[in-house]
Amino acid sequence: MEFTSKLIEQAVGHFSSLPGVGKKSALRYVLHLINQDTQDITNFSDVLKALKHDLKFCKNCHTISDHDICEVCANPIRNQHLVCVVQDYRDVMAIENTGLYKGVYHVLGGLISPMEGIGPSNLNIDSLVAKVTSQEIKEIILALNATMEGETTSFFIFKKLASFNVTLSAIARGIAVGDELEYTDEVTLGRSIINRIPYNTSLAR
Amino acid sequence: MEFTSKLIEQAVGHFSSLPGVGKKSALRYVLHLINQDTQDITNFSDVLKALKHDLKFCKNCHTISDHDICEVCANPIRNQHLVCVVQDYRDVMAIENTGLYKGVYHVLGGLISPMEGIGPSNLNIDSLVAKVTSQEIKEIILALNATMEGETTSFFIFKKLASFNVTLSAIARGIAVGDELEYTDEVTLGRSIINRIPYNTSLAR
Repeated sequence: MEFTSKLIEQAVGHFSSLPGVGKKSALRYVLHLINQDTQDITNFSDVLKALKHDLKFCKNCHTISDHDICEVCANPIRNQHLVCVVQDYRDVMAIENTGLYKGVYHVLGGLISPMEGIGPSNLNIDSLVAKVTSQEIKEIILALNATMEGETTSFFIFKKLASFNVTLSAIARGIAVGDELEYTDEVTLGRSIINRIPYNTSLAR
Repeated sequence: MEFTSKLIEQAVGHFSSLPGVGKKSALRYVLHLINQDTQDITNFSDVLKALKHDLKFCKNCHTISDHDICEVCANPIRNQHLVCVVQDYRDVMAIENTGLYKGVYHVLGGLISPMEGIGPSNLNIDSLVAKVTSQEIKEIILALNATMEGETTSFFIFKKLASFNVTLSAIARGIAVGDELEYTDEVTLGRSIINRIPYNTSLAR
């Protein structure tokens, strides 16, 4: 793709560096922005800069926050003895949206992935161990993706924390609500039989 | 979607205002950007601001350019008597990429669309008429989309320029190279028969 303007080329370059955005989409975004108000673009530009300069991460759980301690960690109603370990901020949002979790979080900032050069030292694992050592944590829920990287990371954390007096659990894997048995893959279906739970009428919804 | 950070919410708002970008994709972009170098984000932010402040449009053909007169209009080899009328900058790029056009362009900046409130006065049509009046233009090629809006705009320009001593032509509509007849829609196939051309071995490629 050849551009007649260096500025357009630069802008397309920046947008196409975003995950899943190609050059054609990037050009579409740039041409859309050119037609917007100057104020809109200035705001957009300022917010981008602020992302690096003003964004804070909770000192306790490493999630993105506007304060030094995030709203979840600072909430006295939340159970501070129950910690849910997640990959990133999106998972915190997803679990918060269920409205069913009353504990706090610990954001790893990624998963162990030798392919991408991400090792345990790149993740917030040491601070999780420190938390278990220094604070009164009763249970840690591992809520990582059911992928190779997620399972590896879960196992690594399990080994790190096995000697501590803390209950380790993992979120249930099984058939999604609304899904049909015959279309579920064997691994998930197999696991859902092995990890069966006592029948309870409150689950039937 | 509820965010724990106002800054993230603002950034997601800006990205999701781009055409075809939803809130989930926008959040993905924002989280990707947070992990980039400060310098990268600063450059991205500066380029966005520059889009409004430094971007120039060619005074002759209205295309996006880094100079007052674009490279195509300023090129003495290009045929200044042959003008191709297009909707926007992307179409200039598409035609330039063919490497087969040796004339110059005239960018309308949109198409007549009463549904979107775009009338002839919002487009660069007056300057096209002025160009035909003042300069020695021999032929104008209408290269607009084969849509309702494109056809309407083509017809409007045809009516405006009919009284001038200039040849008006339109790009050929027909079956795309590599396409199969049986899967082509009837309108296109019908047009390709009516507008048939003398057989020429150089076309068979």
